[in-house]
Amino acid sequence: MSAPSDMERRTFLGLGLGAVAWPALGRAAPVRPQRARLRELGIVIGELATGSHNAITDVAGVEVGHLTLIEDGGPVCTGVTAIVPRTPAFAADFTLNGNGELMGVGSMRRTGLLAGPVLFTNTSSVGAVYDGAVEWMLARDPDLFKSDLQPAPIVGETWAAFLHDEVGRHVQPADALAALDAAGGGPVAEGCVGGGTGMRAYGFKAGIGTASRQIPCDDQLYTVGVLVQANFGRRPQLRVDGVPVGRQITDLMPVRGGKSKSMLAAVATDAPLLPIQLQRVGKRVALGMARTGAISTHGSGDLALAFSTASPQAVDALADRWISGVFQGVVEATEEAILNALTTAYTTTGRDGNTIHALPLDHLLEIMRAYGRLK
Amino acid sequence: MSAPSDMERRTFLGLGLGAVAWPALGRAAPVRPQRARLRELGIVIGELATGSHNAITDVAGVEVGHLTLIEDGGPVCTGVTAIVPRTPAFAADFTLNGNGELMGVGSMRRTGLLAGPVLFTNTSSVGAVYDGAVEWMLARDPDLFKSDLQPAPIVGETWAAFLHDEVGRHVQPADALAALDAAGGGPVAEGCVGGGTGMRAYGFKAGIGTASRQIPCDDQLYTVGVLVQANFGRRPQLRVDGVPVGRQITDLMPVRGGKSKSMLAAVATDAPLLPIQLQRVGKRVALGMARTGAISTHGSGDLALAFSTASPQAVDALADRWISGVFQGVVEATEEAILNALTTAYTTTGRDGNTIHALPLDHLLEIMRAYGRLK
Amino acid sequence: MSAPSDMERRTFLGLGLGAVAWPALGRAAPVRPQRARLRELGIVIGELATGSHNAITDVAGVEVGHLTLIEDGGPVCTGVTAIVPRTPAFAADFTLNGNGELMGVGSMRRTGLLAGPVLFTNTSSVGAVYDGAVEWMLARDPDLFKSDLQPAPIVGETWAAFLHDEVGRHVQPADALAALDAAGGGPVAEGCVGGGTGMRAYGFKAGIGTASRQIPCDDQLYTVGVLVQANFGRRPQLRVDGVPVGRQITDLMPVRGGKSKSMLAAVATDAPLLPIQLQRVGKRVALGMARTGAISTHGSGDLALAFSTASPQAVDALADRWISGVFQGVVEATEEAILNALTTAYTTTGRDGNTIHALPLDHLLEIMRAYGRLK
Amino acid sequence: MSAPSDMERRTFLGLGLGAVAWPALGRAAPVRPQRARLRELGIVIGELATGSHNAITDVAGVEVGHLTLIEDGGPVCTGVTAIVPRTPAFAADFTLNGNGELMGVGSMRRTGLLAGPVLFTNTSSVGAVYDGAVEWMLARDPDLFKSDLQPAPIVGETWAAFLHDEVGRHVQPADALAALDAAGGGPVAEGCVGGGTGMRAYGFKAGIGTASRQIPCDDQLYTVGVLVQANFGRRPQLRVDGVPVGRQITDLMPVRGGKSKSMLAAVATDAPLLPIQLQRVGKRVALGMARTGAISTHGSGDLALAFSTASPQAVDALADRWISGVFQGVVEATEEAILNALTTAYTTTGRDGNTIHALPLDHLLEIMRAYGRLK
Repeated sequence: MSAPSDMERRTFLGLGLGAVAWPALGRAAPVRPQRARLRELGIVIGELATGSHNAITDVAGVEVGHLTLIEDGGPVCTGVTAIVPRTPAFAADFTLNGNGELMGVGSMRRTGLLAGPVLFTNTSSVGAVYDGAVEWMLARDPDLFKSDLQPAPIVGETWAAFLHDEVGRHVQPADALAALDAAGGGPVAEGCVGGGTGMRAYGFKAGIGTASRQIPCDDQLYTVGVLVQANFGRRPQLRVDGVPVGRQITDLMPVRGGKSKSMLAAVATDAPLLPIQLQRVGKRVALGMARTGAISTHGSGDLALAFSTASPQAVDALADRWISGVFQGVVEATEEAILNALTTAYTTTGRDGNTIHALPLDHLLEIMRAYGRLK
Repeated sequence: MSAPSDMERRTFLGLGLGAVAWPALGRAAPVRPQRARLRELGIVIGELATGSHNAITDVAGVEVGHLTLIEDGGPVCTGVTAIVPRTPAFAADFTLNGNGELMGVGSMRRTGLLAGPVLFTNTSSVGAVYDGAVEWMLARDPDLFKSDLQPAPIVGETWAAFLHDEVGRHVQPADALAALDAAGGGPVAEGCVGGGTGMRAYGFKAGIGTASRQIPCDDQLYTVGVLVQANFGRRPQLRVDGVPVGRQITDLMPVRGGKSKSMLAAVATDAPLLPIQLQRVGKRVALGMARTGAISTHGSGDLALAFSTASPQAVDALADRWISGVFQGVVEATEEAILNALTTAYTTTGRDGNTIHALPLDHLLEIMRAYGRLK
Repeated sequence: MSAPSDMERRTFLGLGLGAVAWPALGRAAPVRPQRARLRELGIVIGELATGSHNAITDVAGVEVGHLTLIEDGGPVCTGVTAIVPRTPAFAADFTLNGNGELMGVGSMRRTGLLAGPVLFTNTSSVGAVYDGAVEWMLARDPDLFKSDLQPAPIVGETWAAFLHDEVGRHVQPADALAALDAAGGGPVAEGCVGGGTGMRAYGFKAGIGTASRQIPCDDQLYTVGVLVQANFGRRPQLRVDGVPVGRQITDLMPVRGGKSKSMLAAVATDAPLLPIQLQRVGKRVALGMARTGAISTHGSGDLALAFSTASPQAVDALADRWISGVFQGVVEATEEAILNALTTAYTTTGRDGNTIHALPLDHLLEIMRAYGRLK
Repeated sequence: MSAPSDMERRTFLGLGLGAVAWPALGRAAPVRPQRARLRELGIVIGELATGSHNAITDVAGVEVGHLTLIEDGGPVCTGVTAIVPRTPAFAADFTLNGNGELMGVGSMRRTGLLAGPVLFTNTSSVGAVYDGAVEWMLARDPDLFKSDLQPAPIVGETWAAFLHDEVGRHVQPADALAALDAAGGGPVAEGCVGGGTGMRAYGFKAGIGTASRQIPCDDQLYTVGVLVQANFGRRPQLRVDGVPVGRQITDLMPVRGGKSKSMLAAVATDAPLLPIQLQRVGKRVALGMARTGAISTHGSGDLALAFSTASPQAVDALADRWISGVFQGVVEATEEAILNALTTAYTTTGRDGNTIHALPLDHLLEIMRAYGRLK
């Protein structure tokens, strides 16, 4: 296992909302082309209102941090994204297609309780990231192992080999700690950051995306937020709000083949949901994913984790009659989060000169207009 | 339980492809407005080619029969749809939202083998239909109970109470036998027939729909077919090939409220798939359903059963790398089957004068054109 | 389907605690050999104290009723056992081996709520019993179908063909209503009653058995009760409190072969458990079953349903640290319930003269003494 | 994370069948009291014949290796046990109680294929062991990541904190490689070796145990083997072949409290079983565990992995009617493997002077005789 021996290798560090480490490295940040979130382009998904940042961090008690590892011209193009919920939190997971891992879910399924943070990275780094996350948890609570709860972080992965050297396993336990330490509230950096750095979807550069929705329930207003690491889909399948965008954009194909594979999704809500309800919530990620064109292929690890930040100590479960609102929020936010990953990520060249292009925003808008949207 | 005591009550019998019993009743069949399948309207879903009838019966070894019960001006508006596969067949089921029953799946989950026919009816009739189906199986094989396989039919249900008197439980075991005896190959009657008679979807009349796709695998061509009993969705959610049709049609709302609830889907294929592969196939029904706008609400029983008519005796499982083609076929055929249920069903008035309108085909086509389709 | 046309056929009606219909039939009840519960024999299973009746009815809010159908010298030897909990109740099920059905569990798995009664009968009667149970529920609540909950009873079955004519399907919907109407608290009739009438286990006559345990949790005392319909196991496997009793009793074998198949178990508790906790509780039925020697063979439908009569409206979930006590209670009560079914059932001759012998109590006690118990 | 910096720390290395590294360390091995396997004591579990070594390695294509880490008088008392099957192998897992992890099972559940080795270690070491196992797999197949199969090892853990410093996380990726490199066929070292080094069960020292059974199927003879890492149970619960041994041995209690928690089991067979059949096989581990007295408490991670070394390429599935023989083999071998772990492990003192005593073999035999066994 080759260890990362110096900071030079880490030419781009995205921490939290993308606090960039360029000055510390004594050189200028590269110029990035202008990217935008989907709503900034005038494209609105669904019926429900978003939270204030249209991000998973709109859910009280949820923080996000990224650690991005890019070696210019080298084989390193990955990172770690940490979602840190207030714990313990009721939780459940759903597997749409299981070619991937959400390490640490075993204990969670027993008690329905999430006991640690959730981290997304590339496939070969899960062991190191899990190790780092356990270290981070122990540092915050030395008595962790004495509790009844198995102190398990959840670590998910998608396959970065088109841009990144998966064999080298360049991510270290310390990188997981850095992502966790960087976690905060507010706006969330999207696209080529953290675990999403090496990812692609529908033949375009993709990565991390997020969105949120507000759910009216009687006199309460709950929030549901979704964060995805999008790395799946063939070009002709891509749909944006139902418009067959992927079939219309036939240029800008990846310079070489390679498989897009998987999607990880974290769903957070402050609605007081029991584990058996969260099992159902997680399934709606599949529906939002389908709206963007996915069929969830054989090689995909399409995995969702849903949790509620409402206290499990005082269970006051949301009446089931309101849960359809949460479902709708998850479907809409998942669809939008995936599209945000596409519209915010920029063209990237990784190992062996492999290049994956960004979704061209002008062309996207032109197509949307031709299909009767954005009139 | 009030028993159906005379044939007068059965004013409309759809058997097989809708062989109508009107002459036998000594009166003229009612005039039905012209309806059509989606492809007849020029709307094409997806990329794959259909089978010869674009129906579940395109899969070798699968037959379908309907028994339709309608009492004009009375409270009876339901029926039974029977899907009769060559058995035993490897099989698996998937629950998207579990507010409903697929009776008889217990044994199937143990061995991965479907041992009898699959029947769809209305909610309160499952006991009677199950009873009739066991009788039908015993008549064909008196030694049935001596075999190792639990001789279980599968009986699914959706909620017909807007048009039909669910409390009366008017379906009898003999009605299940009639639907089973009517089963045959070739074109399948859709819309207001069999178990779909009392159903509605997206605020329009719906019911039974079917579609199929051909899957190229090396030098083989496999077929996947889907048959749905569609009874779910709110009007504004309806999408046709991604176009927000439901938001555009604000008239023709049901005269009274009432909940749409559920969808049943049977997925058949002649591809040689193992039970563990069919578990994955069933999940793709959810993706096809999502493309029509569904979020699978709390009250829904959204259940899928997938089976392979390839012989389980000589297992020669499809290489997993081909399974994505089957997935795509299921997604496309599910989407089209649901839309076929909508475009073939006609406006219906049931109990208490409750009326549910058909999707207006002219308006549909007008909207599709406005959104850049059917140019 | 041959209908039971007269009461003469019902030569033995066990209602509730075995209120026998003999006088009504104008003749004397047959003389039954003395049978006993396991504890009356001095054999004590486990460490925990029993409830007042050592029965599932020790759990507040649980009633049990039996309807027994026996035709002397004829092919009818079955019945229905109804377990009627206060509903809605949080619930979950577990399948050890799935060659059998718990009809109606679909909705329950969605919400984690049991909405109706639980009935055990023989294999071919599930449709009729389900139908009757829905009728019973509607009679008590005409608005049943208007509620959000799918009004599903749960109907389980085991295979009675050694003594009973499974093909004839002699049980009618009305029989389910009779069992339900007979439900009450207090002592529970065991052995050859209700759904257990035609059953056998370990090569001996078996049927219904029940037991209960008290669980100290802080300053609370909760109760867990188990009721089984035991119909499984080969003679040499039988263990009584760990003693290899089955290997020692080589006589009294069934006059003819035939398969024992399955076990149904209902687990009730007044401990406030969430569905995710009840999923774990149900698994402990397998451990109790194993202690009696079971390996859960291929042909078995070994199914458990666990529910909590604590109100789901006011969720105050039992701290997980106490749940091991509930587990222990389920293991002990399941083991004892199975043995009670064996020690209370009497030798029975059914269809075609097939005879299954009772476990000989004197021989049992002799063996227990030889193995250092009952010193 | 404190790294193990010298070989001095590794005062006892068990590799494969316990090739001990003492001479290499230049000092004498400690004198261990005589221990024995259960059958060597004359206690025979069940009816079926064992394989030639009564070990999981009796199954063709299965190798086992141990790496044991013990620091005399220090806080290190753990290790890694590697089970290396011929891959890919059809596989499935079962969770009896989920307070623990089988990392890497996600992909396996999708395809039903085990793609790498299975490793057991202590709780806090799973990340490092997973990392090492991926490295080992890559070294053997540099193209590993290019295959369709997610190249996941399976890593399970149980809780070693009574004897071992779980917080220190002393196990390194290299230790996993050493265990894997040590894997071989033939007899398997049991008790205080590999992942079992720090474990205890029923208040006695325990660890690794194994057993096997031969299953006659028509004219074939298949083998099933079980290897457990036993770390669960309270003293009074312990049963040996049904005899309440634990209640009779009230001395030799652990000097301090601490929780026993979990059991890991690997089940191997050369019978050609499909994944859906292996799902059922895994459940029988629970039954074998129950026979030793387990109730599978709240804190337990009782997890089983079952795999078939018959080639998945040429599927010729075992007829289901033979599967009950495999079930019986698993139940018997699991029971015996657990007891072997107890009879082979020796008294151990670990961190903070914590001592856990071995099951006294003389006392065991005395009790067995008193209860009518070993006459």
